[in-house]
Amino acid sequence: VGPVIVTVTVNAALDVTYRVDDLVKHASNRVRAVATRAGGKGVNVARVLHALGHDVVATGLAGGATGEQIRAELHAAGVPEAFVAVAGQSRRTITVVDSDATVLLEPGPQVAAGEWAALQGRLEELLTDARAVVLSGSLPPGLPVDAYSELGRLAARARVPVVLDAAGDALARGLEESPAVVKPNAAELAGLTAGDPLTAARELQRGGAQAVVVSCGPDGLVAVTPDGCWRAVPPARIRGNPTGAGDAAVAALAAGLAGGTPWPQRLADAVALSAAAVAAPLAGAVDVDVYRQLRPRVQVAEADPREGAPCR
Amino acid sequence: VGPVIVTVTVNAALDVTYRVDDLVKHASNRVRAVATRAGGKGVNVARVLHALGHDVVATGLAGGATGEQIRAELHAAGVPEAFVAVAGQSRRTITVVDSDATVLLEPGPQVAAGEWAALQGRLEELLTDARAVVLSGSLPPGLPVDAYSELGRLAARARVPVVLDAAGDALARGLEESPAVVKPNAAELAGLTAGDPLTAARELQRGGAQAVVVSCGPDGLVAVTPDGCWRAVPPARIRGNPTGAGDAAVAALAAGLAGGTPWPQRLADAVALSAAAVAAPLAGAVDVDVYRQLRPRVQVAEADPREGAPCR
Repeated sequence: VGPVIVTVTVNAALDVTYRVDDLVKHASNRVRAVATRAGGKGVNVARVLHALGHDVVATGLAGGATGEQIRAELHAAGVPEAFVAVAGQSRRTITVVDSDATVLLEPGPQVAAGEWAALQGRLEELLTDARAVVLSGSLPPGLPVDAYSELGRLAARARVPVVLDAAGDALARGLEESPAVVKPNAAELAGLTAGDPLTAARELQRGGAQAVVVSCGPDGLVAVTPDGCWRAVPPARIRGNPTGAGDAAVAALAAGLAGGTPWPQRLADAVALSAAAVAAPLAGAVDVDVYRQLRPRVQVAEADPREGAPCR
Repeated sequence: VGPVIVTVTVNAALDVTYRVDDLVKHASNRVRAVATRAGGKGVNVARVLHALGHDVVATGLAGGATGEQIRAELHAAGVPEAFVAVAGQSRRTITVVDSDATVLLEPGPQVAAGEWAALQGRLEELLTDARAVVLSGSLPPGLPVDAYSELGRLAARARVPVVLDAAGDALARGLEESPAVVKPNAAELAGLTAGDPLTAARELQRGGAQAVVVSCGPDGLVAVTPDGCWRAVPPARIRGNPTGAGDAAVAALAAGLAGGTPWPQRLADAVALSAAAVAAPLAGAVDVDVYRQLRPRVQVAEADPREGAPCR
């Protein structure tokens, strides 16, 4: 039997964090400490699912010395991976931390047609026994803009439901294959369609998505689903690092989809797991104790589509 | 027969250049282009010597995925290398270029006692047929502060003369084994001893150095040697990138030492090669045409030690 949940990261990254005293532009800055970690949204989702004990495999495209480091770091963390090697160099993201974060985002590697075909072949194999697949993150140069609808077609053929977490054109074109769930955040949604977020979410639903879950940062989630509309709110504001909170929500939505969990519980899981990601010191990690503690206290209420803006 | 010139880089680096439109602190910045290159002062010296057709080998300490990239890049450039592998990760230096350069310097890897001993063994082998050895750059964590005098002792035993290019304590302690040439720049010299640079150079000579060559940026070089004192001045100010100009001067001084070239010619070579490094667009490279063109026009004059400051 294959894995239950497959995550696809077409633009995997090595996330590097530099601690400096105070970053000075146009000067030489001594880095006090370096931390590296495999990243990219799908990789973060796989890591969270693995931490919760789910049977997951991370696939996608990874290349060069950076790609090797991404895979080695996943092996060290015990997260199963089945990445397809590409000739180009996977990107690094550098976060320079002083009192706040300055981020440098490398472009992804140029992906060749044969490499993209190899990933599709790999995904077909992994979908055999899967119960959910997560398509998450930006597209590297060389991939078609409708890459997520091509992968969605493979999932549909294998009858595996899709969670899609993308932005811009990659999201818009990804709707074509009717993903089970899309998870834009409020800002991405505002960039894609006009009007208030609930209207925008309904528009994504008309565009093809079966369910739309909008993340509203510390205010929780709002969902437009075939079973109804809900708002899920955390019991308290959690202080910490919001990077990776969206990926934790996607992990919960994928697990709920794979297990057939009813929507209100699924959303409560997603809100509690997001908060557990904010509480964890490392971006991309979750504090499992915080998750267990908050989970019973998340409030889920039916939302009235006429009330307007889903995010407070 | 072994190589004629050996360069030692105990803290090799992968030099990464990021082009951005305008680096914004505490924001997300998209990197337009990434260029990587093996670096560290000794590596740059080896590259220049190789470009001029000298028989050179680059050794030192390199580790982890970054160490592999450093070696792979030297192989691609055709520069012979005999680095000793260390368990730690070699450092990266990141230069973020917009209208000017913002530099992020990672610390070097922690070097274990056995790794340091392995480098000494490697150097002993390489010194068998060598006619000059270059000890260049900063010391990584774990090396003794007198590392350059320990390596200098091996060179002395093999009767191979040393060019030492270091700063601070690594330079001060490196004088103990009477290197043939030390090449501080004017700023490093000012940090080490009081008084005007010529007085300071003479103090380094009393400290053990047989000759002291002070680089004065666009003003050329001043040398205090057993054969006399000289000032060497380029025919014109060269515009460009001064990074690597000091390493090019060291390459010329090492080649002159290996070949027994008289001091005035050696200094003229060093000034012309420094200018050729400034003229080359990539840091660590030299424009060989500029070198050949400037070389006959460098002015070398005996300097009067009583005249005071050697840099204008």
